[in-house]
Amino acid sequence: MHLLCLWLLKGVKDMDDFLKELLDCKKYLQVRNELIEMNIVDIAQILEELDKEKLLIIFRILPKEIAAGVFSHTPIELQQYIIESITDKETSNIVSKLYLDDTVDFLEEMPSNVVKKVLKNTDEETRKLINQFLNYPEDSAGSIMTIEFVDLKKHMTVAEALEHIRATGVDKETINNCFVIDEVRRLEGVVSIRKIILSDSDEIIDDIMNTDVLYANTLDDQEKIAFLFKKYDLTTLPIVDNENRLVGIVTIDDIVDIIDEENTEDLHKMAAIQPLEDEYLKTNAFVLAKHRIVWLMVLMLSATLTGSIIQRYEGMLQSAVILATFIPMLMDTGGNSGSQSSTLIIRGMALGEISTSDAFKVLIKEIKVGMIAGSTLAFVNFLRLIIFSKLGYLVSATVSLTLLFTVIIAKLVGGLLPLIAKKVHLDPAIMAGPLITTIVDVLALAVYFNLASRFLAI
Amino acid sequence: MHLLCLWLLKGVKDMDDFLKELLDCKKYLQVRNELIEMNIVDIAQILEELDKEKLLIIFRILPKEIAAGVFSHTPIELQQYIIESITDKETSNIVSKLYLDDTVDFLEEMPSNVVKKVLKNTDEETRKLINQFLNYPEDSAGSIMTIEFVDLKKHMTVAEALEHIRATGVDKETINNCFVIDEVRRLEGVVSIRKIILSDSDEIIDDIMNTDVLYANTLDDQEKIAFLFKKYDLTTLPIVDNENRLVGIVTIDDIVDIIDEENTEDLHKMAAIQPLEDEYLKTNAFVLAKHRIVWLMVLMLSATLTGSIIQRYEGMLQSAVILATFIPMLMDTGGNSGSQSSTLIIRGMALGEISTSDAFKVLIKEIKVGMIAGSTLAFVNFLRLIIFSKLGYLVSATVSLTLLFTVIIAKLVGGLLPLIAKKVHLDPAIMAGPLITTIVDVLALAVYFNLASRFLAI
Repeated sequence: MHLLCLWLLKGVKDMDDFLKELLDCKKYLQVRNELIEMNIVDIAQILEELDKEKLLIIFRILPKEIAAGVFSHTPIELQQYIIESITDKETSNIVSKLYLDDTVDFLEEMPSNVVKKVLKNTDEETRKLINQFLNYPEDSAGSIMTIEFVDLKKHMTVAEALEHIRATGVDKETINNCFVIDEVRRLEGVVSIRKIILSDSDEIIDDIMNTDVLYANTLDDQEKIAFLFKKYDLTTLPIVDNENRLVGIVTIDDIVDIIDEENTEDLHKMAAIQPLEDEYLKTNAFVLAKHRIVWLMVLMLSATLTGSIIQRYEGMLQSAVILATFIPMLMDTGGNSGSQSSTLIIRGMALGEISTSDAFKVLIKEIKVGMIAGSTLAFVNFLRLIIFSKLGYLVSATVSLTLLFTVIIAKLVGGLLPLIAKKVHLDPAIMAGPLITTIVDVLALAVYFNLASRFLAI
Repeated sequence: MHLLCLWLLKGVKDMDDFLKELLDCKKYLQVRNELIEMNIVDIAQILEELDKEKLLIIFRILPKEIAAGVFSHTPIELQQYIIESITDKETSNIVSKLYLDDTVDFLEEMPSNVVKKVLKNTDEETRKLINQFLNYPEDSAGSIMTIEFVDLKKHMTVAEALEHIRATGVDKETINNCFVIDEVRRLEGVVSIRKIILSDSDEIIDDIMNTDVLYANTLDDQEKIAFLFKKYDLTTLPIVDNENRLVGIVTIDDIVDIIDEENTEDLHKMAAIQPLEDEYLKTNAFVLAKHRIVWLMVLMLSATLTGSIIQRYEGMLQSAVILATFIPMLMDTGGNSGSQSSTLIIRGMALGEISTSDAFKVLIKEIKVGMIAGSTLAFVNFLRLIIFSKLGYLVSATVSLTLLFTVIIAKLVGGLLPLIAKKVHLDPAIMAGPLITTIVDVLALAVYFNLASRFLAI
């Protein structure tokens, strides 16, 4: 068996396979030595691919610190499985090495038996903190902050500050910025570790700290926090409670995840999907369908309007069926024109580049764009119909003029609807994204049949 | 005059207005003192709102360091105006205080007279570096990295390392991570400032550095760099040249901008817009129109297909005009269903959650979702038609069955097209976003008329 294993190993190139082979051969020490050289994110990825029994073995042979790091990068299902499978003592070991915000992140997703097991195996102080964190509203600054930061007093010298950092800094998630607080923990200033290192050891923190500190409240929305990070190129942001006491900090690596999350949410809303909690591949078909069906139903039923417009002109269509052949083209071009505008505006608002006070500028711009794009499309379409379809001037002109009006209308609706939604405190991505096509369709058809009845005298 | 000014000031609450009043009264020293207490991002914002003459005055009274910081946060047009207006000496002062990557960022956007003026007023070494940076491909790691980082040697002690950081660290954009290089500048390891501070002063860097360093090449795409930051929760990433020599680092604050940029680009592509270089409000109507018109034209012309399908069934439509009233609803529902799927898949791929190897899983999932969503919609639609429209079973069944097939087809096309685009190395957002509606329209109409001719015997 032993020889066979070694022989097998020689043929294996890929690290994952190599580790799996080592495990099969029960060469745990070697596995441990290979793993501790690796990045915890990569270890977590390997664990995901193992069967659950091997996963537990590996998890148990890893040093505590690394095991905790790997744990925080493991998918929720596996975290639950691990906690449910390991002993109380092991749970306590892992949780004591986890950063508090990682613990809270994972507990938020766990069933109560797991939450109980974890809380039972933490010391009283941590338990109190976890409970406090679990009470912050979802997506608030409080729910994403960490309490692992360095706090200094302003009367300290640089040497004392460094001593304090050395004494307490091992557990801190980031020491790049240190926060200066008074005796009741009110935020007084910030000083970067860089500034401390570059200063003489007898300088006083008060003299080198920056008192113009940006901060946010525990209840502020994470979108606002992300906006502050982007605007001021921050790497950390202190978070205070309602009494202005410093209770935590948000670090930029969490902001990166939030930006992606918010972007995904907006994108899904604009495509008429209720935002998903989980990744696509990890969500089952019923949940996926449920998140899509509501809007599809609303939009399908609202399309009854377009049907009723066509029905009103049934007589006209019967005598000129050719008109029906252009309906899809007119609707698609209108829909595309509208969603181009709404996408630009919704995105511009999300990035803080456009606000509701710009409505008039947007109006003027979209009218201009609509006229330029609309007349170009109408012109090309007119030529195409005259040359290739040999339809006669009147029909060609009707279709092309409708195209021009449709594009202008679509640009206006697409440009203004998101701003109006924002103004009346509705979510622009939800209200404007899916609805624009329906509105534009109705208007385009109304213009079409009106023009047709005038021009073609039917 | 003086008294009037002071009196005016008392009534002014807003900081911006306050500063403008101070400027009007030529109280420059007071303006300077107010400004140097503010965040450079806010100062830049105030400058934007001033007329150009006052802007120059303020810019000149600011301390060099602050002026450089403010400059790097000022919009391109103003940067150009400032450089064109100030003297060679002043240009040299500003540029010498700018970080190299900020200088390069701004020069990339400037006309040649400004570039020349800047290069003329920098020392030879900086000039060489700037030229080297300007030669990196757009959106490559080289073009976004900074050369301001701390490099250590592995034989140094912690005390020596700290001494080296103190001696050279003032100009460094970030000292949170220090990079260890050998005598030919090949990357050997990384050690965080935190680790250095927490270590004893006689420890050797070699013993505390981490040799498992993630790095990227100067020519790697910024999207790949952003992906590494997200996957491994990085704050800095070293960049090496083709000889594996360390030439720069990328810091996470730049990554935040890149993530937003890439998201905007994807979103625009999916809405059939060629990505814009500049903000919406700063782009004129002709440029906006140009960036939208290409796809509108392509999609308008491709909609000729839908027209020709309808034309083929002209006879059928004439004897049952009622069929035309459902075309918009069928097309819209198909379009919405398809874009729901494509959005989920394109976003999932952008976040690295879905890869082309998942095509089969996506196929199965979308068929299931399509059947669930499609049959629900078809059922509701059938009831609606029977009860409210009194159209008879055959027409209602034809429309509802088409709806079912359309939703399934749309889900499949929307789910698979982005994966196929990726597989053949096309941009999924461009290829899949705008085209899906047209493809789904054609297929939906084909199904509709086929079913109608079978069911209704016309």
